[in-house]
Amino acid sequence: MAKQDRAVRTRQELIRCAAETFYRRGFALSSLSEISGKAGVSTGALNFHFQSKRELGEAVEVAASETLRRITGPRPSHCPVPLQALVDTTHELARYLSEDPILRAGFSLGHDAAWSAGDGGPLWPQWESWVLGALAVAGEAGNLAADVALDDAGAAVTAAVVGFEVLGRIDARWFSHRTVTHFWELMLPRLASTEIGGELDAGGAGAPAGPAPRGDAVAVCRAQGERRCQVAKDRGAA
Amino acid sequence: MAKQDRAVRTRQELIRCAAETFYRRGFALSSLSEISGKAGVSTGALNFHFQSKRELGEAVEVAASETLRRITGPRPSHCPVPLQALVDTTHELARYLSEDPILRAGFSLGHDAAWSAGDGGPLWPQWESWVLGALAVAGEAGNLAADVALDDAGAAVTAAVVGFEVLGRIDARWFSHRTVTHFWELMLPRLASTEIGGELDAGGAGAPAGPAPRGDAVAVCRAQGERRCQVAKDRGAA
Repeated sequence: MAKQDRAVRTRQELIRCAAETFYRRGFALSSLSEISGKAGVSTGALNFHFQSKRELGEAVEVAASETLRRITGPRPSHCPVPLQALVDTTHELARYLSEDPILRAGFSLGHDAAWSAGDGGPLWPQWESWVLGALAVAGEAGNLAADVALDDAGAAVTAAVVGFEVLGRIDARWFSHRTVTHFWELMLPRLASTEIGGELDAGGAGAPAGPAPRGDAVAVCRAQGERRCQVAKDRGAA
Repeated sequence: MAKQDRAVRTRQELIRCAAETFYRRGFALSSLSEISGKAGVSTGALNFHFQSKRELGEAVEVAASETLRRITGPRPSHCPVPLQALVDTTHELARYLSEDPILRAGFSLGHDAAWSAGDGGPLWPQWESWVLGALAVAGEAGNLAADVALDDAGAAVTAAVVGFEVLGRIDARWFSHRTVTHFWELMLPRLASTEIGGELDAGGAGAPAGPAPRGDAVAVCRAQGERRCQVAKDRGAA
């Protein structure tokens, strides 16, 4: 392996180990020596990549934000049933939260008082903003019931997913496909217009049942997004 | 003031100051000297009441749990419209979260990794259990739509309120009467049976608009509970 590849891998491994440690112990009690030990490198090697614990925290947040961007993708304006894309994306976020330590740590740093005193970090605003955008597209496409206010629906979906994330730390059932499906079974009859209500799948359309993809997450996630859209297109054409 | 009264007051003040410090800094970075300084007592006086930071944390959790018990009261089986009692109680919880540092800290300790590694503390299970009980009573009273599953509704209400609590740390609008009202405006048409749908007030029935009660919280909360029930009874009789 070239020296540069090795350095990139070490950096990624340090971010992953830092994320696991921050999530389990909280930012304040996480030590650089524990993180370097988990990653199997010396503290000197850690210091070559990150000059402080804060820099490691920032790297975790940036990586988590990037993963969230891949999960959400652009606004689902190219899908014939954008509301289904919102449902599917929520399922995918819950699945990633249950399996991806960096994404999980990125969200939990947002409510770790020792890390983000007061501002909450970038992940929750990023999620809320995407949800509001997706609902706006769904509304324009005629997917939403006429008496549903976008902001109210956005707040309910945002708050419930925050709840799943926080409660999932205590009990993994809150991350489960079942919990998210039941949430949408409850919400969709209220949110969806009568025209598309029967078309929607609270369990997520086209989401693979297996574990979260490894390796080239960008490519895998893009493929998932296309599959989701294809399912939605087939439904739209049917 | 008798010596014993002074001791009780000092203890209560220490719990309040500890709660504020835990909430702002997180448990790990909170120091006993800061807490005793805020309370205006010596560290020796603090040690007379609490032998460790952990004991202070436990006292905050016990006090928060007691406040939550006063807010929720018993199951609203004596109210003619138990679903309204659930709505009202959610409003009252949000109001307390915005104003009561001990309740807020009790909930936030539950997702503070340095405090409750893995178990989440007693507050969230206590709230979830009460919500499920209240929904069961509402179901027995014919308040719920026939196709609503209790567990799904309970999970959605629990998760959304967790979300309001966590997001409220970043932005107080999540604790607001408006946010909770909009959540219920969205949920009630889905949850409520057609028989009582028109009777329900998403903004909360009979909840006072002023700040959270001070002083004898038990008596004030009991009076609020009776007022809520009276409003519900009037509606039931109308």
